[in-house]
Amino acid sequence: MNDEKKLFEMIGEIKAADQEAMKAAKERQDYLAKPPGSLGRLEDMSIKLAGITGKPTGNDVRKQCIVIMCADNGVVAEGVASAPQSVTLSQTINFTRRYTGVSSMAKYFDIDLLVTDVGVAMEIPQELYTDSMLDGEGKIPVRIVNRRIANGTRNLAKEAAMTRAEAVQAIFIGLEAAKAVKDSGAQLFGVGEMGIGNTTTSSAVLSALTGAKAEDVVGRGGGLNDEGLAKKIKIVNDAVNSWCMNDPIEKLAKVGGFDICAMTGAFLGAGIFRLPVVIDGFISVVAACVAKELNPRITDYMFASHKSYEIGYQIALDRLGLEPMFDLRMRLGEGSGCPAAFKIIEAAVASMNLMKTLEEASIDGDYLEEIRRDNLF
Amino acid sequence: MNDEKKLFEMIGEIKAADQEAMKAAKERQDYLAKPPGSLGRLEDMSIKLAGITGKPTGNDVRKQCIVIMCADNGVVAEGVASAPQSVTLSQTINFTRRYTGVSSMAKYFDIDLLVTDVGVAMEIPQELYTDSMLDGEGKIPVRIVNRRIANGTRNLAKEAAMTRAEAVQAIFIGLEAAKAVKDSGAQLFGVGEMGIGNTTTSSAVLSALTGAKAEDVVGRGGGLNDEGLAKKIKIVNDAVNSWCMNDPIEKLAKVGGFDICAMTGAFLGAGIFRLPVVIDGFISVVAACVAKELNPRITDYMFASHKSYEIGYQIALDRLGLEPMFDLRMRLGEGSGCPAAFKIIEAAVASMNLMKTLEEASIDGDYLEEIRRDNLF
Repeated sequence: MNDEKKLFEMIGEIKAADQEAMKAAKERQDYLAKPPGSLGRLEDMSIKLAGITGKPTGNDVRKQCIVIMCADNGVVAEGVASAPQSVTLSQTINFTRRYTGVSSMAKYFDIDLLVTDVGVAMEIPQELYTDSMLDGEGKIPVRIVNRRIANGTRNLAKEAAMTRAEAVQAIFIGLEAAKAVKDSGAQLFGVGEMGIGNTTTSSAVLSALTGAKAEDVVGRGGGLNDEGLAKKIKIVNDAVNSWCMNDPIEKLAKVGGFDICAMTGAFLGAGIFRLPVVIDGFISVVAACVAKELNPRITDYMFASHKSYEIGYQIALDRLGLEPMFDLRMRLGEGSGCPAAFKIIEAAVASMNLMKTLEEASIDGDYLEEIRRDNLF
Repeated sequence: MNDEKKLFEMIGEIKAADQEAMKAAKERQDYLAKPPGSLGRLEDMSIKLAGITGKPTGNDVRKQCIVIMCADNGVVAEGVASAPQSVTLSQTINFTRRYTGVSSMAKYFDIDLLVTDVGVAMEIPQELYTDSMLDGEGKIPVRIVNRRIANGTRNLAKEAAMTRAEAVQAIFIGLEAAKAVKDSGAQLFGVGEMGIGNTTTSSAVLSALTGAKAEDVVGRGGGLNDEGLAKKIKIVNDAVNSWCMNDPIEKLAKVGGFDICAMTGAFLGAGIFRLPVVIDGFISVVAACVAKELNPRITDYMFASHKSYEIGYQIALDRLGLEPMFDLRMRLGEGSGCPAAFKIIEAAVASMNLMKTLEEASIDGDYLEEIRRDNLF
């Protein structure tokens, strides 16, 4: 309970966006040499970023990280997942080998990956682990960070997925991850996951948060058949209705997963450490919703990347009041929507930092002198 | 007429996408370690790219260029544009200073800009010009390439915007640009423009191509008021109906602009020189439509970047049978949608090139040996 008190204190201290910086950013955008508003949501993003960093212009978001929370879910015993549980283990390992979807893009774009085992069921070889989220040089390690709470959660179809204390512990791991991201020098990060069965837990948490019916938030995940889908809907419905869950942490504990808890913490950490954070797909957006439930100001720090094809995504996003940047019919998870979103945010930053106002870009007066002086041509 | 014969010969030789390479790319995507199809349109893009290059995997699109065709339009005398004609001149100069929307992003992402004066009305200082699309080192020059056909087109509200020979000349300039892009070593390019009044000419060309009513394709451009919009609709309607225009080149000549012609050539050049090409906004998509009219195979080479907020955009895009990657409510033009689109294509390429198949990513056998050998961790 002491831990929980500390958690709520930290969450309560999250500050809203810097309105003055945003106002100055908006003014600059309006004077840049273009029809006002013609860069659309790129302008909005540059203004939102100003609110997070407190700097209207001159922001730098080149150094980036994706936090990947890995954990297993006891509910897979019910046959709600199309892939075997061993995939959580192999993908967790393969993130660090840079073999998976998100990690191929991370390797290409030179994005750090903070791969954290919050509770993978199967054993990870000790030599692949590290205890620290930062290596000796203060960098994000190319290893799996060992923060294993248990060998997966318990089966939410039969009992609470975890204790309340475990949920709080997992949220703290997310906060720690956000702090490591900040301390590594990253200026922008994303939140992804790996955990077979986690579309079931996310659907349950979303249903518990919003009151949405199970059939409106439960999708096919990795590729469930009709029978599997029906079972998954029933399990989510039964689980959500079998508990009295009075607060978001209780909902996470009863029907969530370690990954969602830790991701919730990572989103909250974005607010605490004032970092822009990118939401990936369905599981990520549900964790973002829980974070908002804990402190509504947190959406000031969030950017939605892609519109996921999981059925419940839009319900969650509407609750956040955000809009995705792109729709590429992706539904992989892992954080795989974050790299492209990072690049779009960079485009927004570039236009804000490098475009000139009509006055600055005037070709009256001695602009030719300027061009000669700068040896531009 | 000899020129035109040569043009049609070149256009006729454009080959369709390499079906075998696409088949191999699709197979690889299906075996990668993810639920099949879960990377959505990123998978489609990697397959489309394979069709263009003939290589299923191992494609590189890091070196990029945006071709910007700059020209003025006589029709601005009718008051159809919200900005003065001098903006064409200043923005053309400011592309090379890297002060505008697209050029700020190009500078940031290290993308070349091939800025070409196809017929700007006002005088450009000689010292800013170059005669060659490649400099002495074979690079795209940081200058304005002088290909000025005339001081802007004639007023399409009163006479044909240009002669047929001028239209053909401008298309050739676009082909030359695509060749220069290829020769510079770029592996991916985009097509943008600058020309006050060019939403009027684009709307007219689109109406002439598709039979769409003027009011369905004419928008507010840079920011026209109601009166200006009504006038613009009337001018487009009258111009399109006053001519018998039997082929796409005639349509370009009568109601188009030098920029749209040259952009059409650049798109066709993508097919001729087998380069993936990205469509920007409204003017760009109309030029892409003209290119498709001249050879339907050309869409095999095209990627649509953003959904423009100009009203006629969707009509044009539907005609191409393409889908935009993102919708950020942009309506600036210049090619400003291309940089973000390039990055999304790079994400697609990264996943294709760097992800492993389930078999390759297996953690059975001696994967730990592999990790030790590669000194990965």
